[in-house]
Amino acid sequence: MRNIGLAIRFDGSAYHGWQRQVGALSIQQVMEEAAAKVVGKQVTVAGCGRTDAGVHALRYICNFHASTNIPIDKMPFALNSVLPCDIRCMEAWEAEERFHAQFSAKGKQYRYLIDNRRIGDVFLRDRTWNYRYANLDVEAMQRACGPFVGEHDFAAFCASGSQAASTVRRIYSLTLDWRDGLLVMDVHGNGFLYNMVRIIVGTLVCVGCGKIDAGDIPDIIDTKIRKRAGITAPPQGLYLKDVFY
Amino acid sequence: MRNIGLAIRFDGSAYHGWQRQVGALSIQQVMEEAAAKVVGKQVTVAGCGRTDAGVHALRYICNFHASTNIPIDKMPFALNSVLPCDIRCMEAWEAEERFHAQFSAKGKQYRYLIDNRRIGDVFLRDRTWNYRYANLDVEAMQRACGPFVGEHDFAAFCASGSQAASTVRRIYSLTLDWRDGLLVMDVHGNGFLYNMVRIIVGTLVCVGCGKIDAGDIPDIIDTKIRKRAGITAPPQGLYLKDVFY
Repeated sequence: MRNIGLAIRFDGSAYHGWQRQVGALSIQQVMEEAAAKVVGKQVTVAGCGRTDAGVHALRYICNFHASTNIPIDKMPFALNSVLPCDIRCMEAWEAEERFHAQFSAKGKQYRYLIDNRRIGDVFLRDRTWNYRYANLDVEAMQRACGPFVGEHDFAAFCASGSQAASTVRRIYSLTLDWRDGLLVMDVHGNGFLYNMVRIIVGTLVCVGCGKIDAGDIPDIIDTKIRKRAGITAPPQGLYLKDVFY
Repeated sequence: MRNIGLAIRFDGSAYHGWQRQVGALSIQQVMEEAAAKVVGKQVTVAGCGRTDAGVHALRYICNFHASTNIPIDKMPFALNSVLPCDIRCMEAWEAEERFHAQFSAKGKQYRYLIDNRRIGDVFLRDRTWNYRYANLDVEAMQRACGPFVGEHDFAAFCASGSQAASTVRRIYSLTLDWRDGLLVMDVHGNGFLYNMVRIIVGTLVCVGCGKIDAGDIPDIIDTKIRKRAGITAPPQGLYLKDVFY
């Protein structure tokens, strides 16, 4: 039995997130159907984590077990020939028997794109948050990034409904910069709570439009109270950028 | 009666081109319905020219006559509040009485994007031509650009069905370069025949994959025979970039 690791890239606009569910199309369902066509047998594709509806991935990692003779370098093309055009397999490799895309993960990197123009770019409408109500104070937002870095209890940055045993996570880096007319936020951590990245972004935007003071971020983290943090940024600006093992 | 000039930007994926037609949704129809809502009366919106189904615009110019008190600087926001999210009005101005978006035009600039990766970028699937069959010889394609520049009879680069009185056009510049992993072709001319830009791109790609010799371009133009030129590149890589008056 081979354990096949996959790096996929997807435009999440049309999907209700990664996780298979009844009555809504998920990326997992589409991946499992594609893998079944390629290997000729039903398979379970394990993903590196849940994603929300409308969230994208530049490099999402998943794996599945199968007995198949398809050479590993042909696997991406075999999968792409049966996948819809908004999901592409970029890479495939022979993973170790015990490798599991979610449980073996040691860290993740997310990217969030904000289009701060009064008239958002039509070509980026499902790929960015068009925050058009005010010019964001990017320097204040950059000052607000620092206090997030390190190990903290991020309960204030976790949506209700989370089943995480602990709300302590470590953020290795959090940066925000202009790039090609967009505000690009990159965050790297050992794990993220439910909606944590989107609540961090929403809080930074609240700082950028003067609703929250950059100096209050340490206090907000300390309170562990969700309503002290900012709004939840919309899903379409969020990209899973990479997973580390 | 005011004559209002508009610069719009649109993702053409969902439309059957600019021109109003029965039984298919056009950008003109959507613009006319939006303008009617804003000025409270039916209007005709004149465009700077036809576009094919699936073709995009970074800056498409159109104009309409109306009696309305809406300040010109509010016009883009008024239109955007009733336009679908894949069409945005970027600018509006008071045009001279005789200004007509099509008949006053002196030149146009088009851009074409080619994604030459074996696995096309999912986020660019409706915005580029994913030519994945071979690595294109870009130097040969660049050599092939030169002979197009100048005034020529472009009959060989015109789709059948064209009703143009003359097939003579002047190309001011034609360039091809790598940018952010894509091949970007920019062409500027005093006017373009039906499918002319897409046939030029298809011919350059035929040069890039060795089916046509770069040195044969002058001959192909001279023959004025459509079938001597290359294929017609698909619409989704084409952008009207600007119109000159």
